[in-house]
Amino acid sequence: MKLSNMLGDRFRETPADCQIISQIFMIRGGYMKQVANGIYSLYMPARRIVRKIENIIREEMDLIDGQEVLFPVVMPADLWRESGRYDKIGSELARFKDRGGNDMVLGMTHEEASVQLVRGTPKAESAYPFMIYQIQTKFRDEPRARGGLIRVREFTMKDAYSFHTSQEDLEKYYARAYHAYERIFARCGVPEVVAVKSDSGMMGGNISHEFMLLTDIGEDTIVTCPECGYRSNMEAADLVVKNEKLGEEALTKVATPDQKTIEEVSAFLNKRPQDTCKAVVYQENLTDKYIVVFLRGDLEVNETKLRNFVGCEIHPATEITEASGIVKGFIGPVNFKGDARVLFDKSLDGTDNLVCGANEEGYHYTGLSIKHDLKVEGFCDVAKTYAGAICPVCGKPAISISRGIEVGNIFQLGTKYSHSMGLQYQNKDGGFSDVIMGCYGIGVGRLCASVCEVRHDDYGPIWPITIAPWQVHLCAMRADKPEVREAADKLYDDLQKAGVEVIYDDRPVSAGVMFSDADLLGVPVRVIVSPKTLGRGAVEVAARDKSFRQDASVDTACQEIAGIVRDMIAKVNDVE
Amino acid sequence: MKLSNMLGDRFRETPADCQIISQIFMIRGGYMKQVANGIYSLYMPARRIVRKIENIIREEMDLIDGQEVLFPVVMPADLWRESGRYDKIGSELARFKDRGGNDMVLGMTHEEASVQLVRGTPKAESAYPFMIYQIQTKFRDEPRARGGLIRVREFTMKDAYSFHTSQEDLEKYYARAYHAYERIFARCGVPEVVAVKSDSGMMGGNISHEFMLLTDIGEDTIVTCPECGYRSNMEAADLVVKNEKLGEEALTKVATPDQKTIEEVSAFLNKRPQDTCKAVVYQENLTDKYIVVFLRGDLEVNETKLRNFVGCEIHPATEITEASGIVKGFIGPVNFKGDARVLFDKSLDGTDNLVCGANEEGYHYTGLSIKHDLKVEGFCDVAKTYAGAICPVCGKPAISISRGIEVGNIFQLGTKYSHSMGLQYQNKDGGFSDVIMGCYGIGVGRLCASVCEVRHDDYGPIWPITIAPWQVHLCAMRADKPEVREAADKLYDDLQKAGVEVIYDDRPVSAGVMFSDADLLGVPVRVIVSPKTLGRGAVEVAARDKSFRQDASVDTACQEIAGIVRDMIAKVNDVE
Repeated sequence: MKLSNMLGDRFRETPADCQIISQIFMIRGGYMKQVANGIYSLYMPARRIVRKIENIIREEMDLIDGQEVLFPVVMPADLWRESGRYDKIGSELARFKDRGGNDMVLGMTHEEASVQLVRGTPKAESAYPFMIYQIQTKFRDEPRARGGLIRVREFTMKDAYSFHTSQEDLEKYYARAYHAYERIFARCGVPEVVAVKSDSGMMGGNISHEFMLLTDIGEDTIVTCPECGYRSNMEAADLVVKNEKLGEEALTKVATPDQKTIEEVSAFLNKRPQDTCKAVVYQENLTDKYIVVFLRGDLEVNETKLRNFVGCEIHPATEITEASGIVKGFIGPVNFKGDARVLFDKSLDGTDNLVCGANEEGYHYTGLSIKHDLKVEGFCDVAKTYAGAICPVCGKPAISISRGIEVGNIFQLGTKYSHSMGLQYQNKDGGFSDVIMGCYGIGVGRLCASVCEVRHDDYGPIWPITIAPWQVHLCAMRADKPEVREAADKLYDDLQKAGVEVIYDDRPVSAGVMFSDADLLGVPVRVIVSPKTLGRGAVEVAARDKSFRQDASVDTACQEIAGIVRDMIAKVNDVE
Repeated sequence: MKLSNMLGDRFRETPADCQIISQIFMIRGGYMKQVANGIYSLYMPARRIVRKIENIIREEMDLIDGQEVLFPVVMPADLWRESGRYDKIGSELARFKDRGGNDMVLGMTHEEASVQLVRGTPKAESAYPFMIYQIQTKFRDEPRARGGLIRVREFTMKDAYSFHTSQEDLEKYYARAYHAYERIFARCGVPEVVAVKSDSGMMGGNISHEFMLLTDIGEDTIVTCPECGYRSNMEAADLVVKNEKLGEEALTKVATPDQKTIEEVSAFLNKRPQDTCKAVVYQENLTDKYIVVFLRGDLEVNETKLRNFVGCEIHPATEITEASGIVKGFIGPVNFKGDARVLFDKSLDGTDNLVCGANEEGYHYTGLSIKHDLKVEGFCDVAKTYAGAICPVCGKPAISISRGIEVGNIFQLGTKYSHSMGLQYQNKDGGFSDVIMGCYGIGVGRLCASVCEVRHDDYGPIWPITIAPWQVHLCAMRADKPEVREAADKLYDDLQKAGVEVIYDDRPVSAGVMFSDADLLGVPVRVIVSPKTLGRGAVEVAARDKSFRQDASVDTACQEIAGIVRDMIAKVNDVE
């Protein structure tokens, strides 16, 4: 491709409304253009990157016996009614009526479509397992579209669905998919992507993992233990606490006028926050019913864990009415008479000598012993972990918190969709059982942008060679000079004949423009042909990441460059 | 791929609601499953065919300097308001409101998106020409979805857009695209696809061609002249008529009680239909205003030509009111006093001694001379051509009518979209001019089904090797016998290592089931390993189209089969 013919402008100014580096470089480098909020068209460089990622994914999916299929973007609402998601999912699911008045939806994920494709006459157990996947456009009417391709409304996704007759078989396949994901990310040049235990959210099922690229701009909070390798999304992370015994004291009501927050109360009473029992009030979304969570005063509630525990959507209480009997700022577990569901987090288990609210304006108790002063029927696990917390696996106080972008996920779905949608197999006894499913997603465009987040310098992306839009960026400096033009044209032709992907800058522009454009396109190998290099019978070959810079003789440049490209590809692809 | 693991059932019964052979075979062969009316999911065999077609298209688009891009499926309505199509197009255009209440549309074509991607600062003339294309899902809420993948609502399409600064340059590129299209269809195994002149319809612009695969199930009517090669879609076909002079007679009113149709009147008066002047009444869609078309009595109105001539949407008159002054059944051009726009088709030019209505219940005229009895200010060309009509190019009465499926189209759009949407370039004088555009489409799924329509036998499709889901179908007959299993497994591995795409039927099924499944999958080369063939130290290699059937020694089978595949591919790809 000649740069002089290529559509898409490159420029120096950081565009307005750009929050993150991948968005800035991909707008400034002519990779994409916004069509509407969270909806982009891709120019040639981005389209090529995305296609290369797709091909890597396809190869790896085929290697784990995936069958590539294609589901529709537009589906009848009835299919989503069968699974119950038509009503459960809110306005992320785009809906419209077709010309016949039928309710239709735009696919944001394809569990329903995959079950529809697979079901029919119940098949014998021997027909299982199998996996089907597609690479396709999806639309999710995301309320917080932002950050270029990181969080969009329309996106290309690889989604895969596996079908099994036992949990054991699902787990075996899940492990293969997990490994294929590791290979995919490594082959895309980001071997540092890590899998973390995750919350399954609206997908249903139990065990699931997210593949995270750790970077400060990530929207997800990741909990890791450097000691043992434990990794979890914050949403799903267990918290382990060890409480020191403080020594029993009698429960005593004390006046704490105007002291409402944990900080105020503990300072006023000369206690540490962890020596208090804090109350946090939520409401169920549907009924507005109150939920009061008691937990150790220095901790926060993990709302995802709380949501999973109570089994419905919740939100922090917007208003606490007088009628509820809950005394805001002074809520405590002793003689609590509020109209609310009361939960005790396990951080309170076995604690004593705590400060807590007295359910009376202006008063707290000191000397609360959970064991002696209360009858707690069971503790739940709804507190957030924190940096320095005890690792739930190795027990060391080594928990570390970082941020990451989710570039893929894998879920053990179980029978959620097969059961509701009637996908059964015939077991050996002739009876029928629900098929057990797994599902496996990768956001292709998001992966592209995420790679840019972690592979760039101040001037532009540094694309890994396996997904770079081209392998070689050929700059003809002073292409107005016939000897430069001729040498560069010949090298361009020769490299293409040798199977090397070349973007050729043959424009009559300054070295400054030429190099800054090349930086923005981020092609890993740069070749410069100029009067100067030709003067020494050579072309200059340099790495975009500055790891090498050398001359190659004009006569052997093509083979040398092709060799460098081959070696670079082999190095990235050298994964287990 | 092992057939035993592959998803998708094959069966013998013709499914209900299947009208055409490609639909029957693609349902019976486990290629696809309907999700909703006109919306399908594709199983692995169809997905592979479609991908191969996509790759052929991509290669040929790249060869004519196409830049692959990607436009979104979901677009803001405002983009379509700019071009005027949001209001012009009816319910084929699927519309919905996003969560923010914005009007959105699903892309059925991407002229607007292409202009949005290209426009910005007006570029210098030297930045042109260029072409961009995408291969992507589209949705058109088609009222008459039918025939499997031939006419669907959701479909994969390659759409390309070229941008020029002169009509001459557009025409030069148009010719390149035309040739690329010939190569694409030839490489997909249907070199018989022909280009016909077409009506541009809602796309705007003037010159356009459709690429047609001639088959009786086609929805389009194609006009061809075997004498000179003239080809046109019926919608755009000129009609040339030569009228014999019948000899002038005086205009005479005659009673024709109850004789209303041309057939009745001409029989009653002992005339031929072509010796009459017929009236056909239409109405403008928006205003219900009447349009009366007079044409020679044996001809029909070509509604597309009429629509283009009057410049608005029209329909046959549903009711002719008394107030209009039009006397139904007796309409004639002499003393016509109806409230209508009156058009004369050129088939009447110079005719004499015709029968026509007298605009009076129960009466006609005889002896009408267009020249003497009327003052016609201009004739239009709105009559349909017919088999045996005079060719408008070579003048021989050789016009032939056939039916075809449109598998691709190319349009010279002109400035329709650039003008309305503000896409300009800076010309040499420093002024600004509208960019001139062309557009070029191919329906990928439709092409797949169309190939099946013309490449099949009674038992299933016969896929051309370049787009076949696999190249070789390996049948292990009696795979329960270890020697068969071993030889077939080895050949399967060896062929895959040699780069041959193999579907391997290793199931313990009868020869009947095995062969009928193979027929339905339509893979061009079939290899049979059985106790019998092994008994003679061989495997059997046969063509799906029965053009050859031979033994290959077990030792050399892999190389021989790979050679056959190579030769078959080379033969199809051997196009200019």
